[in-house]
Amino acid sequence: MANPLIDDRDVEFQLYEVLDAPALTRLPYFADHGRDTFDLVLGATRRFAREVLFPTYRPLDEQPPRLVNGRIHVHPRLREVFPQLVALDLIAAPRAAEVGGQQLPLTVYTFASAYLMAANLGAYGYLGLTQGAAHLIEAFGDAALRDTYLGKMHRGEWLGTMALTEPQAGSSLADVQTTAEPAPDGSYRITGNKIFISGGDHDLTENVVHMTLARIRGAPAGVKGISLFCVPRLRPGTGAALVDNDVATTQMIHKVGWKGLPSLALAYGERGDCHGWLVGEPHKGLAYMFQMMNEARLMVGLNGVATASVAYHEALAYARTRTQGRPASAKDPTAPPVPLTRHADVRRMLLRQKAIVEGGLGVVARASFYADVAAHGEGAAKERAALVLDVLTPVAKSFPAERGFEANALALQIHGGYGYSSEYLPESWLRDQKLNTIHEGTTGIQALDLLGRRAVGKGGAGLQAVAAEIAATCARARAAGVDAAWIAEVERAVGVVGALTAELAARGLRDPEAMLLHATDYLDLFGTVVVAWSWLDQAAAAREGLARAGDAGPDAGFYRAKLAAAQYWIRTELPRIDHLAQLCRSGEDSYGALDPDWL
Amino acid sequence: MANPLIDDRDVEFQLYEVLDAPALTRLPYFADHGRDTFDLVLGATRRFAREVLFPTYRPLDEQPPRLVNGRIHVHPRLREVFPQLVALDLIAAPRAAEVGGQQLPLTVYTFASAYLMAANLGAYGYLGLTQGAAHLIEAFGDAALRDTYLGKMHRGEWLGTMALTEPQAGSSLADVQTTAEPAPDGSYRITGNKIFISGGDHDLTENVVHMTLARIRGAPAGVKGISLFCVPRLRPGTGAALVDNDVATTQMIHKVGWKGLPSLALAYGERGDCHGWLVGEPHKGLAYMFQMMNEARLMVGLNGVATASVAYHEALAYARTRTQGRPASAKDPTAPPVPLTRHADVRRMLLRQKAIVEGGLGVVARASFYADVAAHGEGAAKERAALVLDVLTPVAKSFPAERGFEANALALQIHGGYGYSSEYLPESWLRDQKLNTIHEGTTGIQALDLLGRRAVGKGGAGLQAVAAEIAATCARARAAGVDAAWIAEVERAVGVVGALTAELAARGLRDPEAMLLHATDYLDLFGTVVVAWSWLDQAAAAREGLARAGDAGPDAGFYRAKLAAAQYWIRTELPRIDHLAQLCRSGEDSYGALDPDWL
Repeated sequence: MANPLIDDRDVEFQLYEVLDAPALTRLPYFADHGRDTFDLVLGATRRFAREVLFPTYRPLDEQPPRLVNGRIHVHPRLREVFPQLVALDLIAAPRAAEVGGQQLPLTVYTFASAYLMAANLGAYGYLGLTQGAAHLIEAFGDAALRDTYLGKMHRGEWLGTMALTEPQAGSSLADVQTTAEPAPDGSYRITGNKIFISGGDHDLTENVVHMTLARIRGAPAGVKGISLFCVPRLRPGTGAALVDNDVATTQMIHKVGWKGLPSLALAYGERGDCHGWLVGEPHKGLAYMFQMMNEARLMVGLNGVATASVAYHEALAYARTRTQGRPASAKDPTAPPVPLTRHADVRRMLLRQKAIVEGGLGVVARASFYADVAAHGEGAAKERAALVLDVLTPVAKSFPAERGFEANALALQIHGGYGYSSEYLPESWLRDQKLNTIHEGTTGIQALDLLGRRAVGKGGAGLQAVAAEIAATCARARAAGVDAAWIAEVERAVGVVGALTAELAARGLRDPEAMLLHATDYLDLFGTVVVAWSWLDQAAAAREGLARAGDAGPDAGFYRAKLAAAQYWIRTELPRIDHLAQLCRSGEDSYGALDPDWL
Repeated sequence: MANPLIDDRDVEFQLYEVLDAPALTRLPYFADHGRDTFDLVLGATRRFAREVLFPTYRPLDEQPPRLVNGRIHVHPRLREVFPQLVALDLIAAPRAAEVGGQQLPLTVYTFASAYLMAANLGAYGYLGLTQGAAHLIEAFGDAALRDTYLGKMHRGEWLGTMALTEPQAGSSLADVQTTAEPAPDGSYRITGNKIFISGGDHDLTENVVHMTLARIRGAPAGVKGISLFCVPRLRPGTGAALVDNDVATTQMIHKVGWKGLPSLALAYGERGDCHGWLVGEPHKGLAYMFQMMNEARLMVGLNGVATASVAYHEALAYARTRTQGRPASAKDPTAPPVPLTRHADVRRMLLRQKAIVEGGLGVVARASFYADVAAHGEGAAKERAALVLDVLTPVAKSFPAERGFEANALALQIHGGYGYSSEYLPESWLRDQKLNTIHEGTTGIQALDLLGRRAVGKGGAGLQAVAAEIAATCARARAAGVDAAWIAEVERAVGVVGALTAELAARGLRDPEAMLLHATDYLDLFGTVVVAWSWLDQAAAAREGLARAGDAGPDAGFYRAKLAAAQYWIRTELPRIDHLAQLCRSGEDSYGALDPDWL
């Protein structure tokens, strides 16, 4: 049986049984939609992902793009399928009709994209980056920029990049040094170097548009002097002609995964002729970027979920068909060997993967739902959704990255010696996954962002909003007849988070570094609780489903597996939080006080 | 500064300050040795590892062996350096002088080998495999086999392999199907297929000797019908001539790491002319293998330690020199960026790696020490050492494999985007490391072996012996002035292990599968405690060292870092055991009761 990439039944469950995605269509922005249009988008995307995109995965992994005479050439198979990928019309799908979009809920877009990511993360990357770049132009660019770029980018005729990182600065965007010199024509001359620019050049489309962070000459130091520029590879010249804009590819980095998508070092203005157009106001570039960052981080979280999902399904199919050994209780050596799934430890590894994959998907899906309400809802609901989204984002980004990597390692482990070979695919997904703990803010940065800003900001309003949402889930679970002990455990966990956060916030008033010393443990704790919330949600929906469908219906197994995964997460993982809270609270200072010269 | 692979000062510390390696020379077998000979071996090995072997690592990783016309060709660089590797004379070093060895303690051999493994795991592999194969012939083979093979293998003129695994059987050696038919000349005709045979062919030496598990026709089913055969690629013919012995390479598996060492599928007797010589008695092959297994598993653990060590040193050097951002408390954006080590979370990642690497090394070193006493000691000490070694082995094998993988991922993470590229080395060590959770018994199998057999066997005598050794460490730590809270925590942990094991053993009398349901959690718990023991040991030696050397001496930093890592492990990791014990005890059955058809 072919790998399903993402489980269709689970998508249906999460969209229509856990969440109430059609409720979004009561908001005016989404009014033209309904379950029928959602299912059309999902159907077309998953078909393309399985039948066309997934078969390109191995060839693209084996043969990365080539840098020849300063230009990047992608794999010929990608050139063939890319027009079909664009034809799904997903780049602008969530955007407004007035800019060529379909006003599709991000929630639905999220599930559709998950199939594409699971099929071929690198190939999907071009779409995601272009969407982000176009969104920046739409939100902050002037009419001239929108006219020039938006349509072409939304139609996938020109693709976009996010050009933030520089070799000397890495994660520290405050140290961006690329400069922008005002020119008489109202544009700027850009000079500088960027690195790790995904999709920074290719031969899929005629042009590439780099959303570039740079400093206008004389700007203040640090984050307050950074502006956003639109810098195309080819700039509009006279008439329809395009002129080379002096952005050169100086190096292709040999990434260990995502091999369909080149990661490049770019040099701007080596000939002094690189034109950039200011997007929005001067010195606000980083603020603009951060306004888009929540969505970008959700998409990285979804990368993590999708990459763990495809590997989980591969491992499940392997464990079902591969026979090996006998259970501990079987003593007859002539009895035939049993499928791997008969061994409890293999079921443990499978259930753990399921808990990570579907728990992670639940969190990203919920975050997308809040993003839809925060963007297009009204009044208190809109405000509350924005608060919840703000706090959930670091978890939705980092949990699937960190735990997804663990899940991917388990998928390889289940394949045994075969898993350790490139004849089988799990090792390639393990490579793909590792990037997600690094790009769009490392896990350490997510942790500082969560504990240092989001969890304690606005007087803790975000955390309170999350607690209120979890309380609603607990009420639903109680009504559905979910095991009371699970509900109590989740309620207790919310209390632990609240008390711990208050204590750390108080500590931070005196000593911010002491508050943040165990930020990574705090992120781990918080993520474990949020995923437990998702599993309680799913348990409630599963109980409701079982009540509807009956214990012997065709869906009964599906619901029972959901309950098993919920039990696993709430009873096996969630209790870890007490240890983590103790670490955060104790101020255990072994590495805090460590002089690196001792090492 | 070049990567040291393994820290020389730590080797000195572990051999002479934590352990008392020279005490071994009071045993008659080791009487010709002393610290001077130990240091000669270590000095020659580390020099070769750093100057010759490590520089071959990247070329061998980039260009794996090739299968051409049925024969394996290794990298030309390996052909050049291999004679020098053999000239270190390590294959037979621990063996008796009467068979050409040097009677070197395994403890010293362990540290020497660690340098070679850290330098180039694949290249070392040929040596380790040959040592294991030769040891089988020495221990169980008759005089004719010993005469024919032992000298050549000890001198590295012929290399050996362990040919256990078959395609249909995987980890389940009970299902070995390769057959051996008695022939009139006293040898056997071997027919069958093996897979994942490391070093199963190459052009480094003229001959390869496969220690092969097979069933004599008519043997009982299961593990009790498996015999051990010596099956060379070329068999002795008339005079000095060697005759092709009908062992064919049918496939080279594309392993994702250890690329210097080919992993092959072999077909025996396709032409009906494969001769094998029975080693020892019929039907005892698996028992013989298991007698060698402890040592092989320690060596896998050492692989894990070494692979994590080389990556840790790479990450440490990178973090010291790479500047990026500013600490949370620094507000001036014009201040120069600081080295990565100034960020607390980076120090956390470094200290965690150090705790895993040096804690793991401590465990493997101690296990080797017990192995030396168990093999060459006398009376009660010999007996006790054998008991302790038996229980420690699954931990010494699996802890460095599982946690080493985590440490390797952290080394990559510290390198940020650069770490995600093959321009830097951490990604290659991450690939290398993953095999260690699979070969020589997967982690799941180690867990069943520990809880199902070793921890509960002989009336719990092994566990009691371990507890007595830990008590001795606690006494030493108390005398040295180690923080009393750390000692109390380790003592408490020993109590947790004892009570839990007794409870699970009692459960096992009624229901073995219920006892073993959380075997992997038990292994995790037990490993965490054993490593805490090692860190307490190291803390005691560090306190003693500080008392000797003074707080301001040149070694003070080294000792303080040891105390920081000990504190980290005992205060941050060790408390996890309560959660793990609760899981083992609870019988939490989410995956136990899971019907795989529901998934």
